[in-house]
Amino acid sequence: MAKEVTNRAENYSQWYNDLVVKADLAEQSAVRGCMVIKPYGYAIWEKMQSVLDAKFKKSGVQNAYFPLFIPKSFFSREAEHVAGFAKECAVVTHHRLMNDPNGKGVVVDPEAKLEEELIVRPTSETIIWSTYKNWITSWRDLPILCNQWCNVVRWEMRTRLFLRTAEFLWQEGHTAHATSEEASAKAYEMVQVYADFARNTMALPVVVGHKSPNERFAGALDTLTIEAMMQDGKALQAGTSHFLGQNFAKSFDVQYTNKEGKQEYVWATSWGVSTRLMGALIMAHGDDNGLVLPPALAPIQVVMVPIFKTAEEHEAILDKMYEIKKELEAAGHSVKVDDRDTLRPGFKFAEWELKGVPVRVAIGPRDLANGTVELARRDTLTKQSASVEGLADTIDALLQDIQQNIYAKAMSFRDANVRKCDSWEEFKTEITKGGFLLCHWDGTAETEQKIKDETKATIRCIPVDSYVCEEEGVDIYSGKPSKQRVIFAISY
Amino acid sequence: MAKEVTNRAENYSQWYNDLVVKADLAEQSAVRGCMVIKPYGYAIWEKMQSVLDAKFKKSGVQNAYFPLFIPKSFFSREAEHVAGFAKECAVVTHHRLMNDPNGKGVVVDPEAKLEEELIVRPTSETIIWSTYKNWITSWRDLPILCNQWCNVVRWEMRTRLFLRTAEFLWQEGHTAHATSEEASAKAYEMVQVYADFARNTMALPVVVGHKSPNERFAGALDTLTIEAMMQDGKALQAGTSHFLGQNFAKSFDVQYTNKEGKQEYVWATSWGVSTRLMGALIMAHGDDNGLVLPPALAPIQVVMVPIFKTAEEHEAILDKMYEIKKELEAAGHSVKVDDRDTLRPGFKFAEWELKGVPVRVAIGPRDLANGTVELARRDTLTKQSASVEGLADTIDALLQDIQQNIYAKAMSFRDANVRKCDSWEEFKTEITKGGFLLCHWDGTAETEQKIKDETKATIRCIPVDSYVCEEEGVDIYSGKPSKQRVIFAISY
Repeated sequence: MAKEVTNRAENYSQWYNDLVVKADLAEQSAVRGCMVIKPYGYAIWEKMQSVLDAKFKKSGVQNAYFPLFIPKSFFSREAEHVAGFAKECAVVTHHRLMNDPNGKGVVVDPEAKLEEELIVRPTSETIIWSTYKNWITSWRDLPILCNQWCNVVRWEMRTRLFLRTAEFLWQEGHTAHATSEEASAKAYEMVQVYADFARNTMALPVVVGHKSPNERFAGALDTLTIEAMMQDGKALQAGTSHFLGQNFAKSFDVQYTNKEGKQEYVWATSWGVSTRLMGALIMAHGDDNGLVLPPALAPIQVVMVPIFKTAEEHEAILDKMYEIKKELEAAGHSVKVDDRDTLRPGFKFAEWELKGVPVRVAIGPRDLANGTVELARRDTLTKQSASVEGLADTIDALLQDIQQNIYAKAMSFRDANVRKCDSWEEFKTEITKGGFLLCHWDGTAETEQKIKDETKATIRCIPVDSYVCEEEGVDIYSGKPSKQRVIFAISY
Repeated sequence: MAKEVTNRAENYSQWYNDLVVKADLAEQSAVRGCMVIKPYGYAIWEKMQSVLDAKFKKSGVQNAYFPLFIPKSFFSREAEHVAGFAKECAVVTHHRLMNDPNGKGVVVDPEAKLEEELIVRPTSETIIWSTYKNWITSWRDLPILCNQWCNVVRWEMRTRLFLRTAEFLWQEGHTAHATSEEASAKAYEMVQVYADFARNTMALPVVVGHKSPNERFAGALDTLTIEAMMQDGKALQAGTSHFLGQNFAKSFDVQYTNKEGKQEYVWATSWGVSTRLMGALIMAHGDDNGLVLPPALAPIQVVMVPIFKTAEEHEAILDKMYEIKKELEAAGHSVKVDDRDTLRPGFKFAEWELKGVPVRVAIGPRDLANGTVELARRDTLTKQSASVEGLADTIDALLQDIQQNIYAKAMSFRDANVRKCDSWEEFKTEITKGGFLLCHWDGTAETEQKIKDETKATIRCIPVDSYVCEEEGVDIYSGKPSKQRVIFAISY
């Protein structure tokens, strides 16, 4: 094989980095903490965008675009919000460079200092609510349902490709409503959109739940989350939807006249998923040979590799392949014929396995004569012979089966790694083994913090689906009464 | 009418601003020079993106994503390039805010000063070529054909919505090639992609040509452009494609081993169009009633307005409209039924005219009884009666006709405002009347500059299509020999 990937068992973290870099998804850039998303990685992100964007639009959301920069004074208006983001802000202070008077290249022109510093958006609630103020007068102007696809910057000190980068791409939805109930329902609706996308498109069995107050978005009254389990047993927060109450409306004085003619503050939600989803996708499904992509997100769903000795054989097989390709493309599949004549089939097999292509079609001279092909599926690494006759249908069924199997596999893994835990002693051991621990919690931030300090485990969510958690019990740590179990885990 | 628009004849510039703001396309934000693109405006931009993106992909280009920030030292490596952009850069100098020790909100943390300042990309040649260095070793790695859709920042002092903003959205393609010929051909191919898009999707009759050396992109050996004429006779540069030679390859030491085993510098192109296209679209086709959108870019192609007196009539007409809507949508058209019962039809007509919706369908009780509708076309403001029977086909034909008519209208306007000019005295008068002047030019930057100083006119391009310009003559200003005419105009 050209590019060796570290084994998961050996070094999971290195395995992840190997996959990202060697499968040509992304790489570190020359700018600290910022990544370059390479074409193959970006093609997956584009597929994610396209599926999500259609779901947003179906729910009545429209796209818009708001400024990259946020004046410092806006940023500071909501107290919790600024406290949450102030420590990791890229700050623009000047608007011009000049030739160094000492002749050493270019320097910042001290004369071009901004009157007020601008923050590169880490999230856009403040600039958007300062805009909504001008859009909202009466109940007739509500609801406003906007989303933007953009880049944001959070100056993280320890970065990892896709999972935690200084700049990342995301979408952020920001809605404005007349009532608390409507806003709250929208926040719930959007986390369900994310869950549906994660499960059916990413093949990722996520748990939907509420964040504990400690883990909420800075400025939110409630944060809903989808939590996924990675193959090392750690949790990964894959998307969040926030009910913001009237916090931002009050900070930016956004009021509307209700049907009774009275002034009221507007209710808000915001919700987002980011290129972090790429990290989740890689870590949930990959194996020691490389990526395993669900067909719904694979830029190439079917790759065809000719097996040949002579140039004549090569040509004859390629002809057949282009014929099959046309048929598969007509059926809506994305297909690549690997016609490089300088590489051995084994090398190509390994390369496309590394890149996670769901189905590989190999054709040799004997297949050509017999009207058959060899089909290999990436998820199980198994092979079968198939007739060229009806191949589009065979492959269509195979892709569906792969999509479902990848989900089922991830679900069994999760099932095998979720367990109830009712004693603190047991918890301290069990948490080091990874997985989700369903434990009683007394609902206090104090207990949560102590558990985190002692074990690094956090409450990933208070589930609203997947597990029946409502029951009386006693907190695993404090021994105080608890009304339901929550998920504790070590997380990314 | 709810929202009055200034007449073009009265104040063209104010008319433009009125259209942008009152048709809900965009507005100024609280951040100097940065705009908010509102949902209706963004929907047009999304349509532009979708058509262009498909064309790029068809030409073999893949999308990718490169960092927002560029280290100052990279930015300065290509001398002409930095000279071209240094005066309008947003510079990030710090990465953290802190509570003001004097208790006055938050301030920039002086401890968090960056070792090296980061420039918010005004364009990405430098960061991309520093990346390509790692991607290119041999001729086998070439060509590289990448594009990114992103935001860029140029700190313009005088801004106008869409036409010139500090932050704007665009796409930038960056390609790397083994030979000068191949790169040069790619630059030409991409300007043709833009011209095709402008003509067939935007209904904008553009002239393709080379920029004069004075007007080239900072760092390019050749800049190709598409130039459009606005209704005030000014020129608008709508897209550019640059042949960069080996300038960036040399600045970032990007060499490849050719088939003979020798090291050579790589050849480059870059090409981009931006949200400025929105400005071109508005100014080229709008009239005193508002926007006129070509059907290919209209977020709503058909709007239906019921005419009714009683609630029963309203309901019966709406039922019919939803039935027609389904049919039209099945035929691939985007349709809106304006079912608001609190607004008069006249108000709605004016609103949808302002928003440039190509076709309006009105149905009153008598139409309902007769099985007819009233069709109004936005481009000509004419009305006709049509049968409900076969309406989808009627509207399909109408939309095609509107698309062609808008183009034809813009083309006649341009034809009426392009003229040859062979005397300097005449030039000085003619240029004040607007339009494109086809004049002989001696090819020197000096003459071009003098003409600009005296009249504000610049060479918009040395045409490669639209007009036959190659002929012997004498420069209009210097009287020196000239080999061809070029287009002079006052531009945006």
